[in-house]
Amino acid sequence: MHIAFQGEIGAFSEEAARTLFPEATVCPCATFEDVFEAVTVGRVDRGVIPIENAIFGSVPANYDLLRTYDLRIVGELRLRIRHHMMALPGATLSGIRRVISHPQALGQCQAFLRTHLPEATAAPVYDTAGAARMVAGEGDSETAAIASERAAVEYGLVVLAAGIETDQQNYTRFLVLAPPQAVPAPPPSLPEAPYLTSLVFAHRENVPGALFRSLAVFALRDLNLRKIESRPLVGSPGQYLFYLDLDGSTADVRVQRALQHLDELAAWIKVLGVYPEGPTVG
Amino acid sequence: MHIAFQGEIGAFSEEAARTLFPEATVCPCATFEDVFEAVTVGRVDRGVIPIENAIFGSVPANYDLLRTYDLRIVGELRLRIRHHMMALPGATLSGIRRVISHPQALGQCQAFLRTHLPEATAAPVYDTAGAARMVAGEGDSETAAIASERAAVEYGLVVLAAGIETDQQNYTRFLVLAPPQAVPAPPPSLPEAPYLTSLVFAHRENVPGALFRSLAVFALRDLNLRKIESRPLVGSPGQYLFYLDLDGSTADVRVQRALQHLDELAAWIKVLGVYPEGPTVG
Repeated sequence: MHIAFQGEIGAFSEEAARTLFPEATVCPCATFEDVFEAVTVGRVDRGVIPIENAIFGSVPANYDLLRTYDLRIVGELRLRIRHHMMALPGATLSGIRRVISHPQALGQCQAFLRTHLPEATAAPVYDTAGAARMVAGEGDSETAAIASERAAVEYGLVVLAAGIETDQQNYTRFLVLAPPQAVPAPPPSLPEAPYLTSLVFAHRENVPGALFRSLAVFALRDLNLRKIESRPLVGSPGQYLFYLDLDGSTADVRVQRALQHLDELAAWIKVLGVYPEGPTVG
Repeated sequence: MHIAFQGEIGAFSEEAARTLFPEATVCPCATFEDVFEAVTVGRVDRGVIPIENAIFGSVPANYDLLRTYDLRIVGELRLRIRHHMMALPGATLSGIRRVISHPQALGQCQAFLRTHLPEATAAPVYDTAGAARMVAGEGDSETAAIASERAAVEYGLVVLAAGIETDQQNYTRFLVLAPPQAVPAPPPSLPEAPYLTSLVFAHRENVPGALFRSLAVFALRDLNLRKIESRPLVGSPGQYLFYLDLDGSTADVRVQRALQHLDELAAWIKVLGVYPEGPTVG
């Protein structure tokens, strides 16, 4: 198996890919679109993308790509995002003068930096794993990176401080993508093996109660919605797309009927995937 | 009038603040929370914050701050985000070797950079206005910044290329914040002067159809929802907060009754503001 992810070796997306597929070969991609492309053309078997972070919200680019590419969601994972401060072997925390990382990671560790390294300058770079690679390459033991534990291992750095993020409830939800022909028929949801169905739809027109009537197709059949995300349709002011995560599989006749009913009301619907509920890790 | 915004002079939030309050004094703040704080303690009269961008999605931090601070939304603005490449007077586009900006702005202008400056390195910094300030301060005519027109004026730079963003539909919605005692009583919505009401609520429990029943209070009264945003409640997996923008003012008896009805169903509700629909600029 080959698994594509966005970012460098040592990125949190790589950690998600390795957790989901411990035996597979991971393939770094420069952009999210490259991940979708690699799965589409068959260069890899699966793609792993972040879709929502508990603190920073959803990843709109990936919602848009899910809509425009013809792939399917076949799995999910919630991964705890733990930040570590790392530097060259021999470096000490008190000797650090400069800390580099992605701006969100620097922000997430601000309280630690203020308390332990008030004199150090914080400098933003493109991503956490790239920061670790730069520290390893520059050979300056006064510079530290904030990145994942995996990045420290990959680039031969030592962890000076572990779990330095302020908010311990920082989880990212990742999705697994497969080409449509590789998706097995889903079993009906059982209480012991819950399934989710993800879909996106647009209303025919922006009339009062349009969303209410769309959600009625699920509520009238006692189907639970996990998540609803509205995204403005670029180029059509006031028009929105709605992304739903629903408890249940399309092998369940209630889900089938709800989707038929929604089809009567919506301008269009796309089922993005039917997949087993995934674990929370870390 | 004094208006707080997050960022440096030359940031897009400053442009929004100046468009909304042309006569006012603008006050830069380091963080979004500092903006909320400045309005709360009365150090400024109003705050201006970004809440949603057409490409990069909503600003989750500001949704959370709207919920936790006791301020009110009193206005809104949609501002077109136009990126310009700027450098020291005398610099030429063909002489640029290094381009600095916020990572999102660099991403937004990637097509332009690939075509016109394939040899230049792109380097991320914290924000667009800060990039312009750095170019002005460093005195290196081979470095350019990508930032707003306002930033070029502020830091005495010349615009080498205007409107270089790939997606011309890049708008950000900004909200105006005021302390609760400064909010005038809203008039009922009239077709010629539409009002919006923004609120946030949480369900008592995560039962099937809970969101459907909540939206029924608006649909049954023919009240149109502009926007729905769900945010995970940090620390309570599976629990969501719902943010709604509703056509109509709380001076309208239908809106009053819908909110009373929602109060029967929800664990809690907070009305974030009642304000006239704002313009789209740029």
